[in-house]
Amino acid sequence: MCLKNFFHDSGEKLMGPDIETLIQKISRLPGLGPRSARRIVIHMLKNREISLEPLLLSMSRVLKNVKTCPVCSNIDAFDDICSICSDKTRKNDVICIVESVADLWAIERTSCFRGQYHILGGLLSSLEGKGPEVLMLDKLVHRCNANGVTEIIVALSATVEGQTTDHYIKNFFSSQNIKATSLAHGIPVGGELDYLDDGTLFAAFSARG
Amino acid sequence: MCLKNFFHDSGEKLMGPDIETLIQKISRLPGLGPRSARRIVIHMLKNREISLEPLLLSMSRVLKNVKTCPVCSNIDAFDDICSICSDKTRKNDVICIVESVADLWAIERTSCFRGQYHILGGLLSSLEGKGPEVLMLDKLVHRCNANGVTEIIVALSATVEGQTTDHYIKNFFSSQNIKATSLAHGIPVGGELDYLDDGTLFAAFSARG
Repeated sequence: MCLKNFFHDSGEKLMGPDIETLIQKISRLPGLGPRSARRIVIHMLKNREISLEPLLLSMSRVLKNVKTCPVCSNIDAFDDICSICSDKTRKNDVICIVESVADLWAIERTSCFRGQYHILGGLLSSLEGKGPEVLMLDKLVHRCNANGVTEIIVALSATVEGQTTDHYIKNFFSSQNIKATSLAHGIPVGGELDYLDDGTLFAAFSARG
Repeated sequence: MCLKNFFHDSGEKLMGPDIETLIQKISRLPGLGPRSARRIVIHMLKNREISLEPLLLSMSRVLKNVKTCPVCSNIDAFDDICSICSDKTRKNDVICIVESVADLWAIERTSCFRGQYHILGGLLSSLEGKGPEVLMLDKLVHRCNANGVTEIIVALSATVEGQTTDHYIKNFFSSQNIKATSLAHGIPVGGELDYLDDGTLFAAFSARG
């Protein structure tokens, strides 16, 4: 009985360099590891026509067509500016500031907001040495002046970096004669009081109305 | 406040059909869902050069090169027969029967076995109406006779379907004058007695030695 091999996952020997490389590459995607990557590759190889080929086609289309919008930094398939910036039915005088494309998508899914977006280049972080230059606010101010923007909605995560950046941006715009608001803090919808952390409960009490 | 949208994940509106299609396709892979697919797509789009492009290249290589071995049904990149079947250093007189390519890879990772493999087309299952024809044993018997095989190792999962199939195969080969053995049942290496299920403990006692 060879016990030595029971205690480590010795990788992808003897399965051909092509499959091995693909498993390695997939295992580096966020949330995946060698085991889930192996499972995905086996699934793709067993279902070439309905999984591997369409996925390959779809990925090459995305690689070819999708780019970053020069106005709001959204990623999308477009010619000059993204579908949100070019949508005439959306308001031009409200800009929502988000940290990432994922946050933009999350807000779009709620259908609550029909204005424009601005995606930050990052958040302020003294630990990572990120100062105000990462926020690229000059570009935003220029955009606000050009479009007569009256309100900036700062929609950042309720983390230390998010709230520091929120504060900085609101402070920055107070001198520009543009109203800057933030998302409300409070009890999440469906949340039970008993399971809430103290900070959230405190925020919900303070902002009651 | 629009609550109606808080309670469902309304899909990928307003993010362009190409990205939407890719997220849908990735979310159908085993172990993934819409959220993890979205995270993966954002990661790929943010890291085109080091993630999306190499992955695309690797997938197209696999699609082009990898096929199913006509002898053992292993999947690999090869010309006539797979790297295991064509390996002259491996024994030809022992064949290990496994359910799937994943199981073959698992056994190869242990480096314990240096014989040939046979991947079954499925397991016997009365619930799913799968009879002995899914096992394709005729092909295996033909292979055994052609190569002078002396031992068949049945390495199937310890599930109801796996053990039924194990029984059927051993019975089948008892009439062919070929020795058929199965993997041992017992305590998994590193396992604590206290946490073992009754069936495993019973099997470990019965097969003590």
